[in-house]
Amino acid sequence: MLNSGLLGNDTICAIATPHGMGAIATIRISGPQTFTVVSSLFQQHGHPFDATKMVSHKAYHGFIVDGKTMLDEVLVTFFRAPHSFTGEDSVEISVHGSVYIQQKLLQVLIAHGCRMAEAGEFTRRAFVNRKFDLAQAEAIADLISSESEAAHRVAINQLKGGFSKELQVLRSKLLEMTSLMELELDFSEEDVEFADRGQLMALLHETLSHVNQLKDSFRLGNAIKNGIPVAIVGQTNTGKSTLLNALLGEERAIVSDIAGTTRDTIEETLNIEGLLYRFIDTAGLRETDETIEKIGIERSYRKIHEASIIIGMLDGTTAYESMLSSAKEIVSRADLAHQQLLLCINKVDVLDDHGEALLNQLRQDMDNDGIGIICLSAKHRLGLNELLDALRTSQPLSHPDVTLVTNVRHYEALVCASESLNHVQEGLELNIPTDLISQDLREALYYLGSITGEITTDEVLGTIFSRFCIGK
Amino acid sequence: MLNSGLLGNDTICAIATPHGMGAIATIRISGPQTFTVVSSLFQQHGHPFDATKMVSHKAYHGFIVDGKTMLDEVLVTFFRAPHSFTGEDSVEISVHGSVYIQQKLLQVLIAHGCRMAEAGEFTRRAFVNRKFDLAQAEAIADLISSESEAAHRVAINQLKGGFSKELQVLRSKLLEMTSLMELELDFSEEDVEFADRGQLMALLHETLSHVNQLKDSFRLGNAIKNGIPVAIVGQTNTGKSTLLNALLGEERAIVSDIAGTTRDTIEETLNIEGLLYRFIDTAGLRETDETIEKIGIERSYRKIHEASIIIGMLDGTTAYESMLSSAKEIVSRADLAHQQLLLCINKVDVLDDHGEALLNQLRQDMDNDGIGIICLSAKHRLGLNELLDALRTSQPLSHPDVTLVTNVRHYEALVCASESLNHVQEGLELNIPTDLISQDLREALYYLGSITGEITTDEVLGTIFSRFCIGK
Repeated sequence: MLNSGLLGNDTICAIATPHGMGAIATIRISGPQTFTVVSSLFQQHGHPFDATKMVSHKAYHGFIVDGKTMLDEVLVTFFRAPHSFTGEDSVEISVHGSVYIQQKLLQVLIAHGCRMAEAGEFTRRAFVNRKFDLAQAEAIADLISSESEAAHRVAINQLKGGFSKELQVLRSKLLEMTSLMELELDFSEEDVEFADRGQLMALLHETLSHVNQLKDSFRLGNAIKNGIPVAIVGQTNTGKSTLLNALLGEERAIVSDIAGTTRDTIEETLNIEGLLYRFIDTAGLRETDETIEKIGIERSYRKIHEASIIIGMLDGTTAYESMLSSAKEIVSRADLAHQQLLLCINKVDVLDDHGEALLNQLRQDMDNDGIGIICLSAKHRLGLNELLDALRTSQPLSHPDVTLVTNVRHYEALVCASESLNHVQEGLELNIPTDLISQDLREALYYLGSITGEITTDEVLGTIFSRFCIGK
Repeated sequence: MLNSGLLGNDTICAIATPHGMGAIATIRISGPQTFTVVSSLFQQHGHPFDATKMVSHKAYHGFIVDGKTMLDEVLVTFFRAPHSFTGEDSVEISVHGSVYIQQKLLQVLIAHGCRMAEAGEFTRRAFVNRKFDLAQAEAIADLISSESEAAHRVAINQLKGGFSKELQVLRSKLLEMTSLMELELDFSEEDVEFADRGQLMALLHETLSHVNQLKDSFRLGNAIKNGIPVAIVGQTNTGKSTLLNALLGEERAIVSDIAGTTRDTIEETLNIEGLLYRFIDTAGLRETDETIEKIGIERSYRKIHEASIIIGMLDGTTAYESMLSSAKEIVSRADLAHQQLLLCINKVDVLDDHGEALLNQLRQDMDNDGIGIICLSAKHRLGLNELLDALRTSQPLSHPDVTLVTNVRHYEALVCASESLNHVQEGLELNIPTDLISQDLREALYYLGSITGEITTDEVLGTIFSRFCIGK
């Protein structure tokens, strides 16, 4: 099955537009028999289409006629290889967007020798025909599923090939190092040192830090792609669910005065100025004997660990000492080197003028510049804008042109490449024999090459393209 | 609002493909500013698109760039007026099918001076620019929503203009008659009779019978478009709901041994060899004091009236005399001139060999060739194929090339035209003065002309096109 895409002898077809009824729908056909099949079904002014006069990239108006049955009035655009998306002979047929017509045309195409495309098979053929590399192919899937401006921007940058070019530069540097070292290996008995070890070290250091930079960008890249995780944590009854509802503008979480109302963690995404945030309402932190609630609290601690931003909810109406201890408990759970922490003193609507004083006191007692503290009333929607502002600025948004790694597969390859390069560095420092170092270098090359697909297996390709939708 | 489509000064845009995410989606733009707007957003190889070199009907690969933001890699096809669907300058942009990109591109187009198209506005502009007539425009909407082979065939025939040509012939005949009679009118004082009354009568008779034939085809045409209505009727507990479930192959209706289980009429459609049937399970017919059930039974009688086919369910396990009286009751309710009746002796699985004898007895006692009688067991799915065969043959399917009227608006116009022509006929027979007859002829011409849109009002157009989807 999977080989079919690589061999490319079949002519494949699929509906490329979204499912359902619309004004028009597009059926895509690609492969060696494309023009023969389409010509046999396409008529203009009651006559079969004259394929010899076909101009590539031109849209022809006419009718799809199967035997004596007229199926639809259509617009057919021919793309002659290699000037098509797949690099093969391809055709796009625009039909009226009835579900019946779409299905029927597929049936007719299959009866004439096409087969249904597998998921991602058009893109896979484009990759095989070197229209783009693997990282760019994956960017297409990301682009289609992008839900926010930031996710879209990252996918577009990857599609344009910026990431691929960076990887090429890295690989050519490593290749240069490898060839220098392997040359030395050939003359090893003569005790020659072609490669200047200092120069090698500098080149390696530069490469490793670039790889690590890409690797570390995954935290933000992944957050942008799937939503920046924001955990709302705090003691029971501090108004965590009320805050989630206020942010979403709807009654998503069940709110009650009964401590321990929220047991499941509730996740909701919110698009704030083009960036997707994934808010996680957690169970209130307290000592409990109730089994289900206990499980919920354990999950809360895990969610705190996974979040990029932590909103620590404090009840402004409780005794100050109790509030301060809660705040310190939350801070102790947070990893301030990697996580942003925002402490919110909630229920300020009932505090009158005390709110400001409380805020200043807490600021003084917490004594940490990295922690934002704000006053709000989730119930009365006071201070929400301040919170949203804090969220926006808390996120260290990179420059639009900096490459962000968003793909788990790429991230894992970069982690492996980084490890291999660390071994190389150790080896150079410890003066380990060149042939052993060279082995690690080749491994790093392998991992970097796997990202763009310069080195790949059929199995890897199968896994990647099966995640695409049919018709892409 | 409605005038905008007729004036056509605006440049309109809409998503033409179905809603949601897909491999690709198509945005359609039409109107005088189309090329200017698209050129300002479209780039090839990092340079603005050179609109002066644009070839109509050619698909160009490139990027949509808004200011400094690259929105997507796209395929843009230009259609220069009048060689486009709307007859105006038009463009189709194929984008990656992310919902974000589709929405964003619309926003960008609107920011550049386009406006969102109203429902059906592209088709309306095509009509105004005489790309097709009103009946053909309506055929497009029917084509998009067609769910079966037969409905699709009827819509395609109407789109091809067969119906429109028939109407043109009818109108030209009537126009000929009118001019003859009005010439006579001019010379009325001289008591001249230009028009041979016998010839006029023959022409009128021919025209009227054609109009009536079209009018009468609506019953079948509408059935094909919306599904042929089949009422399942009978006493309580004869197995009507069990039959519906057996036909659908699923548990749609609640089945129980309790008489009067079905109160609401349940409708379900089933596609049998390319024809859509709309099965209506009715409440069992019996005397009852229960208010809700009473309403249900009244509705059953109405459904019997509306159906094209009636399946009369009889319980084969009840006393023969009782079954015969049920059968006669159903026959008395049916309009055998216009409705097909199928009597089903149900529960034959418990009758052993008696089933066949029962069938023959009933056939003899009913003594009507127009009524089909079959044995079945809905519960055990026995005799279902025989029932389906009977359904298929019971439907007087017309020849594929015979025009079927499927549109209520057309039907109503034909009814009015038929009435007017009847008045003409009466007038000629009674030797009523020519000027009065001429008035009725003009009315008939008006009604026929309203179908294809030769005579129309803005209000009528507004109503018709508002039923289209956006993007068509």
